[in-house]
Amino acid sequence: MSKRITQQLAFLTEADKLKSVLRATTLCHDTRRENSGEHSWHIALYALVMAEHAVTAVNIDRVIRMLLIHDLVEIDAGDNPIHGDHDPAEMAAVEQAAADRLFGMLPDDQGRDLRDLWEEFEAAETDDAVFAKSLDRVQPLMSNLESGGRSWIDYDVTRDQLQTRVGAKVERGAPAIWEAIKTRIDAWFAENR
Amino acid sequence: MSKRITQQLAFLTEADKLKSVLRATTLCHDTRRENSGEHSWHIALYALVMAEHAVTAVNIDRVIRMLLIHDLVEIDAGDNPIHGDHDPAEMAAVEQAAADRLFGMLPDDQGRDLRDLWEEFEAAETDDAVFAKSLDRVQPLMSNLESGGRSWIDYDVTRDQLQTRVGAKVERGAPAIWEAIKTRIDAWFAENR
Repeated sequence: MSKRITQQLAFLTEADKLKSVLRATTLCHDTRRENSGEHSWHIALYALVMAEHAVTAVNIDRVIRMLLIHDLVEIDAGDNPIHGDHDPAEMAAVEQAAADRLFGMLPDDQGRDLRDLWEEFEAAETDDAVFAKSLDRVQPLMSNLESGGRSWIDYDVTRDQLQTRVGAKVERGAPAIWEAIKTRIDAWFAENR
Repeated sequence: MSKRITQQLAFLTEADKLKSVLRATTLCHDTRRENSGEHSWHIALYALVMAEHAVTAVNIDRVIRMLLIHDLVEIDAGDNPIHGDHDPAEMAAVEQAAADRLFGMLPDDQGRDLRDLWEEFEAAETDDAVFAKSLDRVQPLMSNLESGGRSWIDYDVTRDQLQTRVGAKVERGAPAIWEAIKTRIDAWFAENR
């Protein structure tokens, strides 16, 4: 077996573990918590369908690639819920170590390319990354709306906190989507908070 | 809320149900059965990493798009295990009805585009679709190898059946990958059958 394929298959087998990382959000139609593997699929599908709503011109295929790998570091670092309590510097260090290990399993050229794409997502500076980050925030918003605000209740989230942690990020990359769901969000918070 | 975004969000919320469709295969490192949502993520990642092993030149971003939507019809039709017993004509009719309903939730132009992409995958005639089909077969092979042949035991699969139903399809689109894992597969069947 060529060394290159062996490395790639080992990486893909390791990636399977992302399906066992649980997020704060539940499914839309079930009380089961979502895992980061299925979440990654769902937001890649969001990108495919919602591309036209990006605030700037984006390369949607790059956005999709970014979203497919954006959470891989959670295999080592775990999921850090948006409304959870964690030290950003410490978390960043753990995620960098995870990226070293995981992307390091691939052939050098490929590992470097995917690592660069992940760093670009994390930095949230390019148009593609800004839109990708928006989608990463929109999808759990929709799950919360569908599931009766499940993780907003669990994490005792206020409307102001939601604005800062989630709304602002959606608005930055996809203002039309934010505009479209804001009324439902306001209604939920008016009724439940 | 614009009608277009409303339709798109309804489709994406409906798509969430794919996370509740269980497949015959288990995870690599867990006895839990895989769902079709996380499977779709995993094979899209396979495409991203394994693109260079396609037997013909492919547009890997089209392959990824295809894989993101390839199983959506299972929301209505359920998963039909490769080694399971089903009537292909009946299954095709149920899947066509599912495609009508699901892609029909989207704005017309978008629904038509994604439906065409799904039909292309199903037909397995274009280079992109042939490679996509190969990856759809490779990933459960790897899960079976990692989990001790779990679904091969459950479905009492022979090495010949595996060749016809799985190996031939992998070989058609990605012979180098088949070559790379065949030895492990032969070893498993020699030991367990």
